[in-house]
Amino acid sequence: MNLSVRIFKIARAAEKASGVLALVSSKEKNRALVLMAKALLDQSAYIIRENGKDLAAAQKENYSPALVDRLTLDEKRIKGMADSLLATAKLKDPIGQVLQTIRRPNGLLIKKIRVPLGVVGIIYESRPNVTSDCAALCLKSGNAAILKGGREAVHSNKAIFKALKSILGKTKIPVDALQLIESIDRQAVHELLKLENIIDVIVPRGGEELIRFVAANTRIPVVKHYKGVCHVYVSRKADLAMAHQITMNAKTQKPGVCNAMETLLVDQAVAAKFLPSVIADLRGAGCEIRGDQAVRNIIKDGVKKATREDWSTEYLDLILSVRVVNGLGQAVEHINTYGSHHSDAIVTKDKKEAQQFLHRVDSACVYANASTRFTDGFEFGFGAEVGISTDKLHARGPMALEGLTTYKYEITGHGQIRK
Amino acid sequence: MNLSVRIFKIARAAEKASGVLALVSSKEKNRALVLMAKALLDQSAYIIRENGKDLAAAQKENYSPALVDRLTLDEKRIKGMADSLLATAKLKDPIGQVLQTIRRPNGLLIKKIRVPLGVVGIIYESRPNVTSDCAALCLKSGNAAILKGGREAVHSNKAIFKALKSILGKTKIPVDALQLIESIDRQAVHELLKLENIIDVIVPRGGEELIRFVAANTRIPVVKHYKGVCHVYVSRKADLAMAHQITMNAKTQKPGVCNAMETLLVDQAVAAKFLPSVIADLRGAGCEIRGDQAVRNIIKDGVKKATREDWSTEYLDLILSVRVVNGLGQAVEHINTYGSHHSDAIVTKDKKEAQQFLHRVDSACVYANASTRFTDGFEFGFGAEVGISTDKLHARGPMALEGLTTYKYEITGHGQIRK
Repeated sequence: MNLSVRIFKIARAAEKASGVLALVSSKEKNRALVLMAKALLDQSAYIIRENGKDLAAAQKENYSPALVDRLTLDEKRIKGMADSLLATAKLKDPIGQVLQTIRRPNGLLIKKIRVPLGVVGIIYESRPNVTSDCAALCLKSGNAAILKGGREAVHSNKAIFKALKSILGKTKIPVDALQLIESIDRQAVHELLKLENIIDVIVPRGGEELIRFVAANTRIPVVKHYKGVCHVYVSRKADLAMAHQITMNAKTQKPGVCNAMETLLVDQAVAAKFLPSVIADLRGAGCEIRGDQAVRNIIKDGVKKATREDWSTEYLDLILSVRVVNGLGQAVEHINTYGSHHSDAIVTKDKKEAQQFLHRVDSACVYANASTRFTDGFEFGFGAEVGISTDKLHARGPMALEGLTTYKYEITGHGQIRK
Repeated sequence: MNLSVRIFKIARAAEKASGVLALVSSKEKNRALVLMAKALLDQSAYIIRENGKDLAAAQKENYSPALVDRLTLDEKRIKGMADSLLATAKLKDPIGQVLQTIRRPNGLLIKKIRVPLGVVGIIYESRPNVTSDCAALCLKSGNAAILKGGREAVHSNKAIFKALKSILGKTKIPVDALQLIESIDRQAVHELLKLENIIDVIVPRGGEELIRFVAANTRIPVVKHYKGVCHVYVSRKADLAMAHQITMNAKTQKPGVCNAMETLLVDQAVAAKFLPSVIADLRGAGCEIRGDQAVRNIIKDGVKKATREDWSTEYLDLILSVRVVNGLGQAVEHINTYGSHHSDAIVTKDKKEAQQFLHRVDSACVYANASTRFTDGFEFGFGAEVGISTDKLHARGPMALEGLTTYKYEITGHGQIRK
């Protein structure tokens, strides 16, 4: 059977299963998730063994230590995956929720009810825990899932998937509701992206290149973020000690992720006071600084000149661009112009100014007096996430159970006709 | 200035205005809508005169009477448009609504707040009232609107738009928040569809050809329905008098619209009893019947054989396909296979069966004991609609104020950093 037919059959099976899964009770879905957690733990030795094959290949191909780390599974990480399944079992089931009830003058009763999307496709890279996180969120929200992991994690993903899927036969969830595309041929992704009449949404998780590839090659709706160019703005009314802490955290705690800060904006009234010590500490943490002229006037040595390109660059690394701005208005304008509408923060003691910032910055997550690093399904209390969206339609920010649903209108009458 | 630059400038102006409009108060937006309603009435003579030019052109081009009727404006219809503006002013403003409040163990306060999408593009055909309906819904929901009507209504749309726009200078809504593309060159639509970095959503309203053209030529998210293949299923447990009434209404009250019935499904247990009189009445109303063999066995003469193609055809005309089915399961399967996920109804006295139908039919609007003709923003109490969606992402069913919004997370802390 050729690849195209194989992928089509997988998708059709998922679609068929989705109609049954949509009507499975919360209790039964939660029971399945608990059993899946147990299966992961029971089969952890096998999963770690299979993961070893991916790690061996990674070493052969000279992958970066960061990538190897993301790929690595051990007892602790598998326990983490199992815990995440248990946490998802405990989340409130969004399906069947009545979002709105409208009683019309003609007696029609209109109920807006939350229902699953149907078939969700997730295309992701490296981290194997995405396999179980996304499977769990899809099943809990009543969606069939088609998972396509990266070639670098192919053995790990297969092993995790096998453990999860082994459970479905013992539940009322159809076995076909969970699908993994095992082929490492890029053509497999192309084939998947063609199935607009079967797959309801595609969520690509990974680098900007992967996401642009997916968005450019499908008519299926895609929920995505290309990059995270996140800002911290230090107001003249900031608690500067707090601003220092948030700056350090947003930049250095985990620089390789999308919600890490890439540009620091500082009000000119506090720049001379704030910048020297924070830049010294950033440098102490190994961070390169690129600044505008005003920054270079304050910090005389070693600050590279930031170009226009810097303002819209996601470094994903220990590099920070810094700009001195003339108050809130210029900060907001800079963020809305150069940012990626992901996560941006203000540090200020002035509540009114904080409100202004939160209202005027056009991003998925806007923060007052906290680190941008909190943009994350788990940190928001959503259990996990299938991805983070900087799109405005359907889902914005961390996308979890609710983002995997749509609604329908159920209308009950007693013979009403339209005049 | 060439067309491409002109359209870009219009869109950029709308984008700039959208940032200001997003923060305008409900009171001010409602005041603008009331003034706009007055302006339409004040300038009705002018609008009717300009509409005359479109009607003259339509006669020259031998447009169908139905199309000429949709195009025609008179005092009464302009009064209707003004009333719709006033009704929209009275609707609850969705902007600023707190959709969810989450307090995290670390003290972070996360508020999910409803905000406008930004810039909405609406591409529509024939009916000039769409100009004012959509302008009103966009402004009320804090969105800048770029309207592109059909060439057949170009003078009417310009006149209506002029009346509406004349008001903005007297309000806090930026004048640029309302834009009309006057060019009748199809290239103008192409140029508009290129602006994915400016326009947040496109809603095409019109025939299937227009909608497919838009969807195939843009990377901007499109909310749409291609067609409405709507069903009425008459259960063996139906009140047959009610089923008769609903059938007649769903098919004949306005056959040229998307929520009219195209296929009637009848349970085999009541087919022989139900079909003869309802088919006689349908024929009396000028309706052609196409049936499967079981129908042709009951109605011996004049029933054309329905082909597989009939089951998925939107006639938009006095033609009805009829099939006898073996109970609820087959009815649901038929609808989910051949329908367009728009509006489908069951007639039954059995509440449990009704629930089954409502849950299992995968359509935007599912009815028990009422005509499919109610799928409409006005009939749902939404004031008006920018369109009806059979998509599952973002907006489903009649799309009005809420469908024109997204949300953002506003997060307030007191210096939280991620560990």
